Amino acid sequence: MKVPKALTDVINSFEKLPGIGPKTAQRLGYYLLHVPQSELNYFASSLENLKKNTVLCSICKNVSELDPCPICADSSRNHETVVVLEQPLDIMAFEKTGKYKGLYHVLHGAINPLDNIGPDELFIEQLFGRLKNHDIKEIIIATNPTMEGEATSMYISKKLKELSNGSGLIITRLGMGIPTGAQLEFADEMTIIEAYEGRKVI
Amino acid sequence: MKVPKALTDVINSFEKLPGIGPKTAQRLGYYLLHVPQSELNYFASSLENLKKNTVLCSICKNVSELDPCPICADSSRNHETVVVLEQPLDIMAFEKTGKYKGLYHVLHGAINPLDNIGPDELFIEQLFGRLKNHDIKEIIIATNPTMEGEATSMYISKKLKELSNGSGLIITRLGMGIPTGAQLEFADEMTIIEAYEGRKVI
Repeated sequence: MKVPKALTDVINSFEKLPGIGPKTAQRLGYYLLHVPQSELNYFASSLENLKKNTVLCSICKNVSELDPCPICADSSRNHETVVVLEQPLDIMAFEKTGKYKGLYHVLHGAINPLDNIGPDELFIEQLFGRLKNHDIKEIIIATNPTMEGEATSMYISKKLKELSNGSGLIITRLGMGIPTGAQLEFADEMTIIEAYEGRKVI
Repeated sequence: MKVPKALTDVINSFEKLPGIGPKTAQRLGYYLLHVPQSELNYFASSLENLKKNTVLCSICKNVSELDPCPICADSSRNHETVVVLEQPLDIMAFEKTGKYKGLYHVLHGAINPLDNIGPDELFIEQLFGRLKNHDIKEIIIATNPTMEGEATSMYISKKLKELSNGSGLIITRLGMGIPTGAQLEFADEMTIIEAYEGRKVI
């Protein structure tokens, strides 16, 4: 059966998205045939304007409407600590806690030699640049505890130690261990080791 | 954290799609920030044109570029049998077999009182209309073997029997039983009963 081109165009676009396979793309394409034209137009224009109406904050590289972003521009926040993250979405996870009141720095990825992503492909140099102008006292590295995230963390901490030689900059890594609500039974060896080494006096 | 409006617009559009939850919508939205503008424009225009460049075939109600659709217009196909299906996608499943050479009729749904979908919301009347003009000899009801599909099948077959009284129209239902590759061990009772009742001499 020949599927109309207008429909295959939509299906092809969905298929390119991560986590959406050919079957789901097909289902979404056919689903949209039953949606009002006004909703399709809204979806279309939102896609067209996505990149036009957003910028990366020149300081922290977070996705934002304004430059600098509301977090960097907020003078009530603590400008002495910076949490280094892989993705803009990670900021949301942090902000939801309501506990952290410092600044952020988004790398937009992690060092991954297999995908040809080295330090130069990430916003690492920009992080070092922030040290010169501001009175940053602590850098908290919060890349993911994956191979890539750990490599990135090691690279950054090594470079930071060289750069900040004698300036008293504190470099920390997010604590690791058993997550809340998890069961010891299902924790892997590395997590148990991290939790054991990171044990606290109660 | 305030997410830029351009981004929330895209995330909201994705969230409205079936099977896409808030987390996936968020991930897709952020993913698209890294996609070239040209690809976003292609996606956007394909959505805008989806309904403009497709029609429902006036005979079988399949989604098509032309009216009548290529299947209904194909004189080499057998115009004496019609397979009745719930969705346009079901035609593809049938066509992939390469075995069936007759026509189709798409109902665009199934009778579902809980969702307020009665016979009038489906293209059932149009199916009856096709009996008047054409020399249809057999109607094969191939709605899904779900509650709704079975109810639709029963409704259509009852009405067809009234309409075709004495004309010799054959009304059949797609055979049911164990699907190829499945294991008896995991088949439910209804499937076993259908397979038992539908047993064939070998």
